[in-house]
Amino acid sequence: MTHHVTSMLETHPRGVDALDKEKLAACIAACFECAATCTACADACLGEDMVADLVRCIRLNADCADVCAATGAVLSRQTERNLDLTRAIVEACRRACKACGDECATHGDMHEHCRICADACRRCEQACTDLLSSLG
Amino acid sequence: MTHHVTSMLETHPRGVDALDKEKLAACIAACFECAATCTACADACLGEDMVADLVRCIRLNADCADVCAATGAVLSRQTERNLDLTRAIVEACRRACKACGDECATHGDMHEHCRICADACRRCEQACTDLLSSLG
Amino acid sequence: MTHHVTSMLETHPRGVDALDKEKLAACIAACFECAATCTACADACLGEDMVADLVRCIRLNADCADVCAATGAVLSRQTERNLDLTRAIVEACRRACKACGDECATHGDMHEHCRICADACRRCEQACTDLLSSLG
Amino acid sequence: MTHHVTSMLETHPRGVDALDKEKLAACIAACFECAATCTACADACLGEDMVADLVRCIRLNADCADVCAATGAVLSRQTERNLDLTRAIVEACRRACKACGDECATHGDMHEHCRICADACRRCEQACTDLLSSLG
Repeated sequence: MTHHVTSMLETHPRGVDALDKEKLAACIAACFECAATCTACADACLGEDMVADLVRCIRLNADCADVCAATGAVLSRQTERNLDLTRAIVEACRRACKACGDECATHGDMHEHCRICADACRRCEQACTDLLSSLG
Repeated sequence: MTHHVTSMLETHPRGVDALDKEKLAACIAACFECAATCTACADACLGEDMVADLVRCIRLNADCADVCAATGAVLSRQTERNLDLTRAIVEACRRACKACGDECATHGDMHEHCRICADACRRCEQACTDLLSSLG
Repeated sequence: MTHHVTSMLETHPRGVDALDKEKLAACIAACFECAATCTACADACLGEDMVADLVRCIRLNADCADVCAATGAVLSRQTERNLDLTRAIVEACRRACKACGDECATHGDMHEHCRICADACRRCEQACTDLLSSLG
Repeated sequence: MTHHVTSMLETHPRGVDALDKEKLAACIAACFECAATCTACADACLGEDMVADLVRCIRLNADCADVCAATGAVLSRQTERNLDLTRAIVEACRRACKACGDECATHGDMHEHCRICADACRRCEQACTDLLSSLG
């Protein structure tokens, strides 16, 4: 997905030179991939016989999916960007990914979908951290 | 909308006693109303002859709609709530509403949809501020 | 919520005269309210001790919330409207509301949140049906 | 993105054998990629000096992004799937992609972001058509 995102950033009429384009593209792609993976993980958890033990995981998956999708959309908008809002939403996304990744990791040995989802959350958490530090 | 939201919070099996239920319901309702209003304002601005002068408004409307919708959803989830994420997303929402409300207010004399949208943003910004201070 | 939605439709620069404004406003408001209620119902179901018996309800709540939110947004956009897409998305929304409302209704005696959610789904299903017949 | 989506479908506890897994994965990935691309294209159009000529494009981008995101989420849920709703939302998505792809294609010579977006819309339209025919 990073390739598509980078292509779109490179064709933006106003340019994205004020930001680190590579870190921005990585974060947008990670957000949309994490949102998709969390949506799928919530549903897979819901389909498990032991669903009662996965309630916290399903709940954090749902939050992480919503926050990642909103963050990916905000970051995709580079016309009249607002750095104050950018920092705040990326920080919220970093925390959502941390919480969901930690929870999914505890079920990773038993459920492969949680292991894959924990990886997607970790990647997105790192991409948010990297983007935040580049924003200064 | 607050009435519907309050009814749902009151029937939640785990209760919401740890939070100020009235402020929580007000903030959820304000988030969803602001998201709906910003989506409509972006489209109304897009339909104006002077669309070129409303680019910043349309862009902030889009962000505000996405962040408010995600925040309303996160706040609606009271099973295994995560206060750290709650604070971060409500703070991001407060900033999105502030930015969009400020921009819409500058067009409020000329465009009634911007005036109504500025009001929705102000209400949501205040509801976020009130909820944040009740969270401690 | 209908009042807010109607105000925004009335201030739209291109007008909405080609459509039945009252039915359109009712449908937009019903979509956003149903989305909010389904998000809350999914979470309330997830918090019940008998969550394993509510898997189908949670799953349909999630779909209904997503489809209603998308439909409310599409209907809110009246600049360069596309009637072909409008009909298709309102039809999908009607089916999502029917499926979710039917399921929630089966748990309405036991769970008040499901009873309230079944009502929201019925209202939105009816609003979709009414709008579809006015579209011809 | 298809690789990630396929991995999640393969680990689903209830299996997806009733559907054509390859077509399903392709459609989910195409939906999320098209949603991301349309969000970026709307913003790039908004940043062009000739924004007044791109109003229809921005509007269809916004609808297509919302409908694709909802469709990707519905298709990702395979616990207690509902084929009636699946068909209706994929059909709505196919029409949104057709409308947006047709519009973006008319600006593809002038704006590279519209050319890339038209491609993403075509791929998603085709993936929807393929999935619909496999559903019978």
